Amino acid sequence: MTATRRPGRPGYDLDTLLAVAVEVFNERGYDGTSMEDLSRRLGIAKSAIYHHVASKEELLRLSLDRAMDGLFAVADEVRTSDAPAVVRLEQLVRGSVEVLERELPHVTLLLRVRGNTDTERNALERRRAFDRYVAGLVRDAERAGDIRSDLSPTMTAHLLFGLVNSLVEWYRPGRRVSRTALADAVCALAFDGLRT
Amino acid sequence: MTATRRPGRPGYDLDTLLAVAVEVFNERGYDGTSMEDLSRRLGIAKSAIYHHVASKEELLRLSLDRAMDGLFAVADEVRTSDAPAVVRLEQLVRGSVEVLERELPHVTLLLRVRGNTDTERNALERRRAFDRYVAGLVRDAERAGDIRSDLSPTMTAHLLFGLVNSLVEWYRPGRRVSRTALADAVCALAFDGLRT
Repeated sequence: MTATRRPGRPGYDLDTLLAVAVEVFNERGYDGTSMEDLSRRLGIAKSAIYHHVASKEELLRLSLDRAMDGLFAVADEVRTSDAPAVVRLEQLVRGSVEVLERELPHVTLLLRVRGNTDTERNALERRRAFDRYVAGLVRDAERAGDIRSDLSPTMTAHLLFGLVNSLVEWYRPGRRVSRTALADAVCALAFDGLRT
Repeated sequence: MTATRRPGRPGYDLDTLLAVAVEVFNERGYDGTSMEDLSRRLGIAKSAIYHHVASKEELLRLSLDRAMDGLFAVADEVRTSDAPAVVRLEQLVRGSVEVLERELPHVTLLLRVRGNTDTERNALERRRAFDRYVAGLVRDAERAGDIRSDLSPTMTAHLLFGLVNSLVEWYRPGRRVSRTALADAVCALAFDGLRT
């Protein structure tokens, strides 16, 4: 049963419900949150939540899909490009930062997932597929001589997306940093370095 | 009452006890771990744990201090150096990566602290002091014209230590990466960039 088959009810649509649920998941952890907690935070009965979703895990799935679908959309776009690997790698980093900003609570939740449910294991599998794509692109860029070859491609990929993912720890939207400025800053540091 | 005043008992010394406790804290979260859980994992009675420490919070404090003391030792060393700010900044990054590797479980715990107890709030206060030191050093390096000035010093500091801290998410000791290699890789990416 999927959420989209159920029509939204006036007052609380699925998007709002999901936004609040994800906020609570990020505060207390998914495992530490009950439907009771969600109903209290939303100020509606549990039955009103079940009007929209079949279970707490469905809310988790909707959230993780939102994050992963965003990242895969960027990867798909990059895949169709004819640009050199290093340019595609930079596009991938830039696009990922933009997804992270747009879907910050969902990406935050995704990065905390540890694999306790099928939904989490599925998200982790998609993350691994994404990471493999990144590592492949790093390898191509290195072979083309466009990025440094003194780091292993795996380590470079880890460092690069470690940097991107670390944004969830400090970046808060509207904090004087525009979306482009953040992606620019990440790419400036990662590709050209701090040193003048 | 401090742990050091109590002599270790044969079989389980404080270091081993702490190592196991921090492992469990990192798995289940500090709040989600009871003394009962620790006693079960260690295979000893709770009274045997209380022989070493007064409370669960004392174990947390010992762990967070281990991480922060390591980082402040690096900062103190850098502070006494006469080198240009950009060199000291690089020394600080390098030293922090080495502390992170040496004290990986403790730094991991530190980075997950949310401030629910006095011990956690105290650790967060120390982290903020450390971050201010980093930001100051970035500002000095930028004024000296040695690092790029198109990023704000605050953002540069966030990105730099976001990169360092992200290592806890993927780095595991003994994984074919030597300690120097990891610090070298982080500094290479951050200061000189990936692009050839």
